[in-house]
Amino acid sequence: MDKVLNAQLEKLTDEGLLIFQPVKGYRFSLDAVLLARFATVKSGFKIMDLGTGSGVIPLLLLTREQELQITGIEIQEELAWLARQSIAVNHQEQRIDIWHGDLRQIGSNYNHLYDLVISNPPYFKGNSGKISCGDSKAIARHELLCDLQDIVAAGARLLKPKGYLALIHRPARLGELFALLHRYRLAPTRLKIVYPNRSREATMFMLEATKGAAGPLRLLQPLYVYDEAGHYTEEMQEIFNGRKMQDGVK
Amino acid sequence: MDKVLNAQLEKLTDEGLLIFQPVKGYRFSLDAVLLARFATVKSGFKIMDLGTGSGVIPLLLLTREQELQITGIEIQEELAWLARQSIAVNHQEQRIDIWHGDLRQIGSNYNHLYDLVISNPPYFKGNSGKISCGDSKAIARHELLCDLQDIVAAGARLLKPKGYLALIHRPARLGELFALLHRYRLAPTRLKIVYPNRSREATMFMLEATKGAAGPLRLLQPLYVYDEAGHYTEEMQEIFNGRKMQDGVK
Repeated sequence: MDKVLNAQLEKLTDEGLLIFQPVKGYRFSLDAVLLARFATVKSGFKIMDLGTGSGVIPLLLLTREQELQITGIEIQEELAWLARQSIAVNHQEQRIDIWHGDLRQIGSNYNHLYDLVISNPPYFKGNSGKISCGDSKAIARHELLCDLQDIVAAGARLLKPKGYLALIHRPARLGELFALLHRYRLAPTRLKIVYPNRSREATMFMLEATKGAAGPLRLLQPLYVYDEAGHYTEEMQEIFNGRKMQDGVK
Repeated sequence: MDKVLNAQLEKLTDEGLLIFQPVKGYRFSLDAVLLARFATVKSGFKIMDLGTGSGVIPLLLLTREQELQITGIEIQEELAWLARQSIAVNHQEQRIDIWHGDLRQIGSNYNHLYDLVISNPPYFKGNSGKISCGDSKAIARHELLCDLQDIVAAGARLLKPKGYLALIHRPARLGELFALLHRYRLAPTRLKIVYPNRSREATMFMLEATKGAAGPLRLLQPLYVYDEAGHYTEEMQEIFNGRKMQDGVK
């Protein structure tokens, strides 16, 4: 546990939300912030965050709705411990529970319990590039301890009927994700693509799927991160300000 | 054949391309124009257009590359006949061949022959809404005589290895299309989403897939049809002017 004691407390939002982050190794990214704004969240929801890292998604979800019961599961013991410290300094122990464990091993007594399963999963195939296996950053970024199928399978069984699975991932994995959703009988309902700006290809997408019968897939307005001058766009500033992401629906 | 004789010759491009269109019933839409600009086309390509209608896609492809050998297959005899008249008035009989026939019945001697298979297919499920079966417009718009699986299956067998399948369709069918591509071992490589403007949800998408090994899926910059004032955007004007659609790649 020595290395995570080397963490610093940072400001997560202007409203005073705080978060502990390791000085080295894993740090949450913009992607977690985007996903926390994108997912469908309603008062009373029971939520599971798969691979919660430093607990950033549970904390941000509470800025949208107060009446939530959120569990974050994290396989890296040091990160799970750090997430608990962040929950504590924000006095959210009543609403957020952090488990140290393997998302593939969640007991079957938790099946069909959740309204929303959310995850900012490892993006890269386990066998791609050089990886030092004991590295906390590598576990968060590479599919060493779980892969995309594990995430979708966990979502499919943990969700209530009509529950939501919300994920963020890289464009290269979109086809595979659609095929997995099909296999696990989850229907994609909302897709929002994230572009760095108005001239580059997309770097990320966010997808929400529903368990069981659902309406047709909606392709929402894309999100542009930077404007032509290289500054954050208005929509990004609204996301940082904690307002809900626009669906781009009239 | 009486009813299609009630057709008029219209200007397809400013450069003088002409096309016959029935006065009533089926007329090609903007979608065919978008798809003809989106697909990967290279000099020397052998191309199959599944459900060519009035032959608009073959004619527009020739504005991008002259050295193409294009076949358009159309199940509606009157439309196939009309397409041939359009090919003739544009003097493109050497480059475009129109078949009257069923795309599900193309002989196996045509397997693995094409560099590009392209299709602007019927968008709606055969059982959705009221349909009068003898209606030429209904056959073009509803999956009465072929469905999305037929299109993907035909593409998979007609294409050469590394050949391209380019389709345009509605957002509601994107998930099903990804699942079909997976089943027929076609890899999605380029996705471009079409939005009416910067505030509405998408109404169409264009997807290109490759037969066999391919790079990761690229999510291209979206296409906006209208600007905030309700006029065609600059990119749309470039498409009408016959220039190639931008990929949005730096």
